[in-house]
Amino acid sequence: MAEQHAKSSPRRLGYRTGIGGELIAEFLGTFVLILIGCGSVAVAVVGLSGSGRQEGAFGPSNWLIISWGWGLAVVFGVYVAGGISGAHINPAVTLGFAVRGHFPWKKVLPYWGAQLVGAFVAAATVYATYHWAIDAFNAKEGTGREKSLPTFSIFATFPAEYFGNSWWGPFLDQIVGTAFLLLLVCALIDMRNTAPMSNMGPFLIGLVVVAIGLTYGTNAGYAINPARDFGPRLFTFFEGWGAIAFPGNFDWFSSYWWIPIIGPLIGGVIGALVYEHLISRVITARGQVHPEGEAGEAE
Amino acid sequence: MAEQHAKSSPRRLGYRTGIGGELIAEFLGTFVLILIGCGSVAVAVVGLSGSGRQEGAFGPSNWLIISWGWGLAVVFGVYVAGGISGAHINPAVTLGFAVRGHFPWKKVLPYWGAQLVGAFVAAATVYATYHWAIDAFNAKEGTGREKSLPTFSIFATFPAEYFGNSWWGPFLDQIVGTAFLLLLVCALIDMRNTAPMSNMGPFLIGLVVVAIGLTYGTNAGYAINPARDFGPRLFTFFEGWGAIAFPGNFDWFSSYWWIPIIGPLIGGVIGALVYEHLISRVITARGQVHPEGEAGEAE
Amino acid sequence: MAEQHAKSSPRRLGYRTGIGGELIAEFLGTFVLILIGCGSVAVAVVGLSGSGRQEGAFGPSNWLIISWGWGLAVVFGVYVAGGISGAHINPAVTLGFAVRGHFPWKKVLPYWGAQLVGAFVAAATVYATYHWAIDAFNAKEGTGREKSLPTFSIFATFPAEYFGNSWWGPFLDQIVGTAFLLLLVCALIDMRNTAPMSNMGPFLIGLVVVAIGLTYGTNAGYAINPARDFGPRLFTFFEGWGAIAFPGNFDWFSSYWWIPIIGPLIGGVIGALVYEHLISRVITARGQVHPEGEAGEAE
Amino acid sequence: MAEQHAKSSPRRLGYRTGIGGELIAEFLGTFVLILIGCGSVAVAVVGLSGSGRQEGAFGPSNWLIISWGWGLAVVFGVYVAGGISGAHINPAVTLGFAVRGHFPWKKVLPYWGAQLVGAFVAAATVYATYHWAIDAFNAKEGTGREKSLPTFSIFATFPAEYFGNSWWGPFLDQIVGTAFLLLLVCALIDMRNTAPMSNMGPFLIGLVVVAIGLTYGTNAGYAINPARDFGPRLFTFFEGWGAIAFPGNFDWFSSYWWIPIIGPLIGGVIGALVYEHLISRVITARGQVHPEGEAGEAE
Repeated sequence: MAEQHAKSSPRRLGYRTGIGGELIAEFLGTFVLILIGCGSVAVAVVGLSGSGRQEGAFGPSNWLIISWGWGLAVVFGVYVAGGISGAHINPAVTLGFAVRGHFPWKKVLPYWGAQLVGAFVAAATVYATYHWAIDAFNAKEGTGREKSLPTFSIFATFPAEYFGNSWWGPFLDQIVGTAFLLLLVCALIDMRNTAPMSNMGPFLIGLVVVAIGLTYGTNAGYAINPARDFGPRLFTFFEGWGAIAFPGNFDWFSSYWWIPIIGPLIGGVIGALVYEHLISRVITARGQVHPEGEAGEAE
Repeated sequence: MAEQHAKSSPRRLGYRTGIGGELIAEFLGTFVLILIGCGSVAVAVVGLSGSGRQEGAFGPSNWLIISWGWGLAVVFGVYVAGGISGAHINPAVTLGFAVRGHFPWKKVLPYWGAQLVGAFVAAATVYATYHWAIDAFNAKEGTGREKSLPTFSIFATFPAEYFGNSWWGPFLDQIVGTAFLLLLVCALIDMRNTAPMSNMGPFLIGLVVVAIGLTYGTNAGYAINPARDFGPRLFTFFEGWGAIAFPGNFDWFSSYWWIPIIGPLIGGVIGALVYEHLISRVITARGQVHPEGEAGEAE
Repeated sequence: MAEQHAKSSPRRLGYRTGIGGELIAEFLGTFVLILIGCGSVAVAVVGLSGSGRQEGAFGPSNWLIISWGWGLAVVFGVYVAGGISGAHINPAVTLGFAVRGHFPWKKVLPYWGAQLVGAFVAAATVYATYHWAIDAFNAKEGTGREKSLPTFSIFATFPAEYFGNSWWGPFLDQIVGTAFLLLLVCALIDMRNTAPMSNMGPFLIGLVVVAIGLTYGTNAGYAINPARDFGPRLFTFFEGWGAIAFPGNFDWFSSYWWIPIIGPLIGGVIGALVYEHLISRVITARGQVHPEGEAGEAE
Repeated sequence: MAEQHAKSSPRRLGYRTGIGGELIAEFLGTFVLILIGCGSVAVAVVGLSGSGRQEGAFGPSNWLIISWGWGLAVVFGVYVAGGISGAHINPAVTLGFAVRGHFPWKKVLPYWGAQLVGAFVAAATVYATYHWAIDAFNAKEGTGREKSLPTFSIFATFPAEYFGNSWWGPFLDQIVGTAFLLLLVCALIDMRNTAPMSNMGPFLIGLVVVAIGLTYGTNAGYAINPARDFGPRLFTFFEGWGAIAFPGNFDWFSSYWWIPIIGPLIGGVIGALVYEHLISRVITARGQVHPEGEAGEAE
């Protein structure tokens, strides 16, 4: 059926093939990422009956919900868009691939744009679905949106109080987290290494994000993706969260918005280069001969 | 052995091949879905020693049990029936596939019937196994079944209190959740995209439902499947839950029963069409050429 | 290396090939199953700092530990023994396969023996590692082993109090749980259905047990395996738990020991026959033609 | 692109091919292991808002975070280094493989060195990212680092109080845990057994460590890897934790440091030999003929 449609209208589809189709895929992949990811924080903060009472919105059980939520968000964002655009769904990934020479520079800005728009539209969808719960939560807490960091945190990130107003702590956190992401993504798609086959790669890439959530998520909300943070941040700015959203002011910090943009871009490049220099070139130099260390096991 | 039986009695099996065999598979797959899914809510609500006391039946740890329970329910419902009927086990999936032109319209109603019967019989089995626990729970709470929303929730869904008596909130929630389900199911079985191979698809399809539970489950119980909700709802109506079950009346809402039927059917069609128009046709138009964006990585 | 050894000593290995090797594999697989499974209950009951205080030994977070623990126990029991004995590691599986005609009847009793011995030796190993924690727990609670149902529950199962002294409730629970296990195991190894390939089957079979734990585990501890329950039960009988272990007496029940033996054997046969009659024969009758329902999707 | 670089500079890469490249891979793999693993304990102990208050740093929900954290740490440590060095990332694995004859003895010490350095550098990175949170936690508790067992536990292990000052309990625990690890790793990479294919092996090997965490983790912190414990232990010794780190003195124990080194080395050899003698030789003797027990199922 789908084939028939295509055959009868190859021209109308013109704008969606080539870069056009890739941008739609990046849009949709990032949309899925944010829809699921932000949804998991919404469940933890305003959805569950026990939240806000016993262990706090970011207690250990809720953290499992959030970490698996964002991880599965990546899994399915990649499965949706993988066959068309390569499913970067993250400007830091796009930049890291370009720096390694695996992605054309001229496509970087269009990809970034599609990712940002996808994240913004997804934030609007999350809001459409959860605004009842958000308003009920704030009514119970007796605060307006412009003071409500918990409900803002459904959409975008903020640093832990223990960093105080120092930018270096959360900035380093974003660099380390995103470097790890790119290092692993590069490993998991390098068929000369032990990349998963049978199209199980997106599942493992999502587990990378589960891992980052479980290990570096509480410092500053593990944006590790400029579009994931800035798209929903813009949306909340327009929807009443005001200065908490942009420029990102709250009791212990002022002007946070740029950290989850610049930090991940730097970290992503570092991670991609570490993989390139420590692993990829060694594999290349070996000419794909299987290492002695495994030979005994593999046969 | 199985082969021998089959060879010696091909005629007696006649009614089970063709549409008959498919309907049995849909029945059994949906039976497995409900047996496991409703069982996980039973564990959370009436099974665990700590429930109802500390974090409430739907606190964060219990929510992990429920989300993984329903996810694995889908995994195994699909593995059981996949080889025979395609394992829709959900009227919204059947409808979505038909709208895309991937499933014959004349089979839609029979599939729906088999799914509904499977869900009803499974609810009876869950009840047979858990009625001791249900009665003990209600005795402790001092309420009869006709007032017991927690024990009803083992079987079917209800909307969060913050929606009030507005139908639009939970209805939108069902549309969004089911659209996401169909969008992803279409992606995960499209071999021209990055569909998992080695028959790992059912595992990933189940993880979609884990993801929906962790992100959109608390609004209205994520039925996202008319048979999953209406079959057990009918059973509880006959078993003493009365108006809570049908038409679905409780303190803040009246007549809920139709929302988890109509909402998922609309959402499923939307999800299938989004995949068809934004992804599937682009892949088709490209003639399955691998996108430039991944070419550098894939070799 | 291993190959060299084998070539130089084929005779000495004689007793381990054929049935001898299979029994060793069943022994080791069941040993792994119990080592990991009972260990997870030990962590929940006596290992964690928060246990016994806040949510009770079987509260929702601990239940996640136990369910994933037993599930992974099955995963790895099957991976260890799969290549030699088929990794039944459960008398109910062995019986179910024999009834379907997929396993020779004359091997049933030897397999059962190897499974029971493996479970007994594993229980001893768990005890060797955890007796410090067990004694500390009982000292704190001020009870002796012969009264300590929590520490007994590390090793074997007991029914929920709400069943009272009725044998039918937990017995039905064991039948339903084990029928589900066998139904799914049969589906997951049937290459004519959608069985996982790339040797991912043991992973999915373990997830079946995660699912049963999350959905039918709290009724009666989901033994669903006569060797899993009776081997450790015997061990605890000799190590001081006395009548709690055998015949299984406690406040609300007397003589429980036979239920997790007979229940699973009956349930296993039912599950195997349901798969045989509702699914396997339909596939056979169709001559492995792929169903129309999926044809549109699969291409 | 990567290929072009390599072609233009094959000489400069010389030091990284052969043993040099393998050591870099072991370094990086162990770095990833510790970065993620210790990060998960940091989240549980100092990162989450609910920690230290309600269920204690090592309550059941936090234990799920730690167990999955360390498990995913292994998954990705192996995926990063697998294609070059075989990804031992654990001296006990290296020794076990050497004893089985699957790894050259002359490489054992260099591998151990690379693993230790990787663990040490990763501990420094974890500290760089988390020292704000650590200092805030200790300030709140009113203790200095030299008295802070919780913050030390982010980096290295200690035995449960119930062992008292007896070395045998935690020592046995390390032997059993590491024997299980090696037994399973040997099974999961033995292609003549049911080893996962499609490069899903690293995923399953990580799940082995999830399993050990959920079942033997609370006795003594499941080091099961001399480099994992000693590298970070050294780092904390230099960073102010003093005698808690080395030689490992606290209220109920003195001089713990050697147990997570010697225990895993012994346990690893035992596990590798159990696999060699009970499983591997049987498979070899059978000449890879598939066992009768599965034949009926497999077709």
